[in-house]
Amino acid sequence: MANFGFANLVVVAPYAPHWREARSAVGAPGLLQSATETTSLSEAIQRCTLVVGTGTLTHRKPEQPVISLPSLPELARRELANNGRIALVFGPEKHGLTREDLSYCHHLVEIPTDANQPSMNLGQAVAVCLYELAVRVPEAGLDQVPSLPEHIRTSETTAGNLDILAGLVEDVMTEAEYSPHNMQAATRHNIRLMLRRLHMNSADSRRVLGLFRRILRRIRLS
Amino acid sequence: MANFGFANLVVVAPYAPHWREARSAVGAPGLLQSATETTSLSEAIQRCTLVVGTGTLTHRKPEQPVISLPSLPELARRELANNGRIALVFGPEKHGLTREDLSYCHHLVEIPTDANQPSMNLGQAVAVCLYELAVRVPEAGLDQVPSLPEHIRTSETTAGNLDILAGLVEDVMTEAEYSPHNMQAATRHNIRLMLRRLHMNSADSRRVLGLFRRILRRIRLS
Repeated sequence: MANFGFANLVVVAPYAPHWREARSAVGAPGLLQSATETTSLSEAIQRCTLVVGTGTLTHRKPEQPVISLPSLPELARRELANNGRIALVFGPEKHGLTREDLSYCHHLVEIPTDANQPSMNLGQAVAVCLYELAVRVPEAGLDQVPSLPEHIRTSETTAGNLDILAGLVEDVMTEAEYSPHNMQAATRHNIRLMLRRLHMNSADSRRVLGLFRRILRRIRLS
Repeated sequence: MANFGFANLVVVAPYAPHWREARSAVGAPGLLQSATETTSLSEAIQRCTLVVGTGTLTHRKPEQPVISLPSLPELARRELANNGRIALVFGPEKHGLTREDLSYCHHLVEIPTDANQPSMNLGQAVAVCLYELAVRVPEAGLDQVPSLPEHIRTSETTAGNLDILAGLVEDVMTEAEYSPHNMQAATRHNIRLMLRRLHMNSADSRRVLGLFRRILRRIRLS
């Protein structure tokens, strides 16, 4: 929650010793200090207009409409435009939300997961849901996320071939006494970065490889 | 990884006792069994054409282009369209990727987080990155995610007011001897769900509340 800028945590009927411990832990974020505690879910969500439960549907037939997590930001934007207040409800790690818990929810949100491994760790499920809201609901707290910059490019050369090329360039530099011995580690680092910045296509990387092989042979012959 | 349908895990120089334990754990997913182990990052990524490091930028100035996680699917789609192979590299929990690790990366992907709490738990960072790829890169393994269904609606009435209304409806039913005593728990459950299905706006919920108050009074008077 703190990572994605959410501040209002309500804990329903927590196990007192664990909850006390979590709150008083060194470095506990402020939202744990300011969290409220209620005895029932109903009490926790009193002021909310839209209540969304979370869970996997493997073992039950839901009694309310199900939406997929990537659709939640659109629903949240609409609700916030109506001055609504949204609660996202998570169940305990072990068994998730009960049927009674879910009867307080307007919708059930499902995280799309692989059919062979549908059940997620609670902390990871929370992170994924809040990430989706934080980056796609402008009102949710995070700054606007920039789109893919123009200068970002794809690559065609495998890391294995780049390593071969980097080794060859280094050999040439050494044979040509281009870089002093005590600079070799730094030079190697910079060559690695440079070769990745070039985003060579396969044909070009083969060409450069051939060229450096030839250069190396010529230097060694001379 | 198993939740989001990713299968190819390479572990670089793991701490042997922990790694052995993780692999042999009861219920460990198949991807742990089939994971490969290398002694260096360079070896792990040999066959990949695009290598993307992850991390927060709080304490360093990156040496390669940085993209925000929501832009990663677009980059991945382009790379896959070129028949490329992508590696996503995560560092250890404690200190993340080193400067040397990053020199093997074409790009650095950053998870947008709150400036007050930028550093994420490793498992949650992995979950968020793989979720983003799984739902927005069609080739990534998960089935196509449906968009928000037409019938999904927002709500204007707070959960608190719905509870008051539900209590009133129940009182009316009891006074009118509508539902048998042994059905009360089931009836309460169904009323709760129905009131949420109706998605009443504020004015309508006030109207219905007033009506049921009147009905209750009339029944009690009769």
